[in-house]
Amino acid sequence: MGIAEEMGKKQREISVSEFFEKNRHLLGYDNKAKAMLIIVKEAVDNGLDACEEAHILPEIYVGIKETGTEQYEIRIRDNGPGIVKEQVPRIFGSLLYGSKFHRLKQTRGQQGLGISCAVLYSQLTTGTPTSIVSGTGDGRTHRYQLRIDVAKNRPIVMETSTEEGEPWHGTEVAFVAESTYRENKQSVLEYLKQTAISNPYAEIVFDSPNGRFEFKRGVDRLPPEPREIMPHIEGVELGVLMRMLAATSARTVHSFLTSEFSRLGKQSANEIMLRAGITREEAGSTVPDMKLRPSRVTDDQARALIEAVKEVKLVRPPTDCLSPLGVELVESGLVKELNPEFVSAVTRQPEVYRGWPFQIEAGIAFGGSVQEFNLLRFANRVPLLYQGGVCAMTKAVQETDWRRYGLQVNKGSIEEPMVVFVHISSVWVPFTSESKEAIANYDVIIKEIKLCLQECARKLSIWLSGKRKKALLSKKKSIFERYAGETADALSLITGERKSEIEEAIVALINEKWEVDDGTESEGEDSEAGTGSDDSAEEEGESEYSSSG
Amino acid sequence: MGIAEEMGKKQREISVSEFFEKNRHLLGYDNKAKAMLIIVKEAVDNGLDACEEAHILPEIYVGIKETGTEQYEIRIRDNGPGIVKEQVPRIFGSLLYGSKFHRLKQTRGQQGLGISCAVLYSQLTTGTPTSIVSGTGDGRTHRYQLRIDVAKNRPIVMETSTEEGEPWHGTEVAFVAESTYRENKQSVLEYLKQTAISNPYAEIVFDSPNGRFEFKRGVDRLPPEPREIMPHIEGVELGVLMRMLAATSARTVHSFLTSEFSRLGKQSANEIMLRAGITREEAGSTVPDMKLRPSRVTDDQARALIEAVKEVKLVRPPTDCLSPLGVELVESGLVKELNPEFVSAVTRQPEVYRGWPFQIEAGIAFGGSVQEFNLLRFANRVPLLYQGGVCAMTKAVQETDWRRYGLQVNKGSIEEPMVVFVHISSVWVPFTSESKEAIANYDVIIKEIKLCLQECARKLSIWLSGKRKKALLSKKKSIFERYAGETADALSLITGERKSEIEEAIVALINEKWEVDDGTESEGEDSEAGTGSDDSAEEEGESEYSSSG
Repeated sequence: MGIAEEMGKKQREISVSEFFEKNRHLLGYDNKAKAMLIIVKEAVDNGLDACEEAHILPEIYVGIKETGTEQYEIRIRDNGPGIVKEQVPRIFGSLLYGSKFHRLKQTRGQQGLGISCAVLYSQLTTGTPTSIVSGTGDGRTHRYQLRIDVAKNRPIVMETSTEEGEPWHGTEVAFVAESTYRENKQSVLEYLKQTAISNPYAEIVFDSPNGRFEFKRGVDRLPPEPREIMPHIEGVELGVLMRMLAATSARTVHSFLTSEFSRLGKQSANEIMLRAGITREEAGSTVPDMKLRPSRVTDDQARALIEAVKEVKLVRPPTDCLSPLGVELVESGLVKELNPEFVSAVTRQPEVYRGWPFQIEAGIAFGGSVQEFNLLRFANRVPLLYQGGVCAMTKAVQETDWRRYGLQVNKGSIEEPMVVFVHISSVWVPFTSESKEAIANYDVIIKEIKLCLQECARKLSIWLSGKRKKALLSKKKSIFERYAGETADALSLITGERKSEIEEAIVALINEKWEVDDGTESEGEDSEAGTGSDDSAEEEGESEYSSSG
Repeated sequence: MGIAEEMGKKQREISVSEFFEKNRHLLGYDNKAKAMLIIVKEAVDNGLDACEEAHILPEIYVGIKETGTEQYEIRIRDNGPGIVKEQVPRIFGSLLYGSKFHRLKQTRGQQGLGISCAVLYSQLTTGTPTSIVSGTGDGRTHRYQLRIDVAKNRPIVMETSTEEGEPWHGTEVAFVAESTYRENKQSVLEYLKQTAISNPYAEIVFDSPNGRFEFKRGVDRLPPEPREIMPHIEGVELGVLMRMLAATSARTVHSFLTSEFSRLGKQSANEIMLRAGITREEAGSTVPDMKLRPSRVTDDQARALIEAVKEVKLVRPPTDCLSPLGVELVESGLVKELNPEFVSAVTRQPEVYRGWPFQIEAGIAFGGSVQEFNLLRFANRVPLLYQGGVCAMTKAVQETDWRRYGLQVNKGSIEEPMVVFVHISSVWVPFTSESKEAIANYDVIIKEIKLCLQECARKLSIWLSGKRKKALLSKKKSIFERYAGETADALSLITGERKSEIEEAIVALINEKWEVDDGTESEGEDSEAGTGSDDSAEEEGESEYSSSG
């Protein structure tokens, strides 16, 4: 047997479970403290997604109990719609399986990897199957104990049962995994706290090994539900277009273009086809070939279509697929959890990267219980606690000139009692890795974040200049007041007038002077703060920000 | 239909091809220049792996031709053993398929993702199938044109044929992909140049759009072939152990332990079983249960085995699975491609992380044609050109105190004409992402790199102090010599002796003094350079380094 034959015999398929088991650090399972966070995060994210899809105000329970040396039971329960019995095994017991990957809709989950990898990690480290209990409101409760067959990437159901009883809906999942419990900045507690900020309509109860933490609901309504959209043709690459052409049920290329893409009208379809040379002659003029079937499109024609798209001006994708939190929810979340002296928030208009819509919002919480600078990063309402160093949000904060807004920056560190909140909403968040910890550095995303931060900073700057001016004036006033008595004494001696009258007059003079100063200096400082502003800030005025304390 | 049922209908399997198509930045396909590099790298790495496995001195050809706007044909040919006909489609047309994932052997490829992702990227961006030609030495040449069925992660063979002719062996693959050609520090040219350094036994010819580059072989022998090893039980996690227990053909737990793990003898197996409580009573004493079948091991017993392993002192994994380049090849590679004035290299003893053996070697090339500081990173002989910022090698270089070795460091930058070479060999290199661009920050790996760099730096420091001392002395001497004539004149006037005789005597004196100074100062400076040395450097002496230029 030749060497090629020998080597050929060694070729084998690698299951996606085996791949991620060996490469578990790609999903973030590189240390024990982080492992606990990721497991909680995946289950809570799924619970919140399910509640919102079913228009249910979320109630989330997280319970963590030590069950051995560096071994914990991690239990997460939601009040979502539940999971139908036959879907439970594959959702939890098979990697790359889910409802969110193939849809263009803003959800927390998107890969179909998270929850099954938590099952995988649990069985790898403790050999324990994962337990799932689910009710869908029909009075039956389904229970499962399951593992993953790693070589086949398929669920192994160890035990299952169904009970009849009171109707309820929701899902509870319990893992036993090797991990450690911490309460630092990258912990389950911090993740839940930040989740409470970015999801102020959720009620969260956390039974930690150190006792109970409760995060109360701040508002009683869900944000508008994002709509699912079709792909925008500008974001579709040639290979994908060819696949869509082969799979479509549309009868002509023209109807394929107008029916399978977002906001692509007949006129634009005509123009694309004309530019791509998919035409015929009719009455002496060249018109789009309205009869060409999608299955008949050659590779060259598909290529020409993609080229044509670049040249035709198209309507942008719709933005009702996005559901930002909005100024009110961002502010309410920051106030509720951080208790600052000042808060401001801004939601930008949607933008597009690689054909995918996204939207940035930011907030600043300043002073009060806020002690030091901190950046809170969120993607589709999920807090991002790791890999800040490579994240587009960190980069945008670093590239913002905070000094222009009267803030102290020393060697690149912002030295103010200030929390900056940044949130990206998108139908497909561009994460730098499967562990979904950081946003890829797309220029258009960084630019949007910077513009949003500038608007917030401008509002802070106006508030701060007012606050600092007040402090200065009251200091001046108190100096004058301190010497009013002595001055009155001296004047009384010289003039022979009554001291008390003179003192009254002096105080009146001080108060008058203080009022006048207030007006003048305020104008001056406002225009100074205005240096850092651009048009949009002027237009928006100050209606969007509020101060609280 | 309830909401749970509705949501259940949307659940679908996600093929691994779809996953990586949508997440192609995870494999490094985030920009067009990088795309070209990755395609070349995957094919060249496979070619070199195949040649080495078949004990063939590698001859690699890379040809890049522009075929359209930002579109290139990228052709890579090797003289390896070739691929058997029936394996071609799956190797190139199916993600997560390969011979290297399941083996513990030092190879460039390890994931079974690289070459098929290059096919995927080509068809995604240009719609073009990939062409493969292979001969295995039996006189038949197989040709393929293929694509990937993305939804199924299966090859689609567009065309295939077999020709009879002269026997030859090797593989040629040609992609047409969207990309751009550059000749900067992260380009195909740089990758091939560095490949020539780390594989000096390979002959590489590169027909670039700007003309031909040739990298000649520097040595005529392959490094020793690394051996495949069994897993070491210290690196095996519970879930994997349970799977191995279920799959083994060993008849008892004891024979399972001694036959399926690396360097685990009968005595150690006894001890592990005793500690794990897998025992029975025999003649009044507790002995390992030699009859227990692997299939009968309970989950708790498996857990106890893993715990027992942590307590028993075991022999380390063997290291003949590793094939470092060795001092001679590292130096020969650096000299051949960089033409420095001085070169030194060190190969450390193997170490272990997570049960997997690895080995570090490093080299320094200084002066000569080397103009500025540069770090060259390699893993299993493959140059790493991206993501230096997050790589363990960069971290180790930053944490090394280069000033101790007489080198200029300014604000963290090394300001010397010096190239640092670092190479990790391992049966499983811990990359930070699927794109295999950076080494994960394991403490033991960083420590090994630092120790290796220190040894190299010490040698450089000794050479440098010699060089600098020589320069200083020759400057002193020339000053004395400059005034020898005048001094002789004056002495001749005073003493009446002949000027020429006096001058001769003075020059002799200078030369004598210079010789004496040489000795004294040399001793002094040597001991100074020695401050930075530790034991290992003393033991090694200077036999390993050479200077050339």
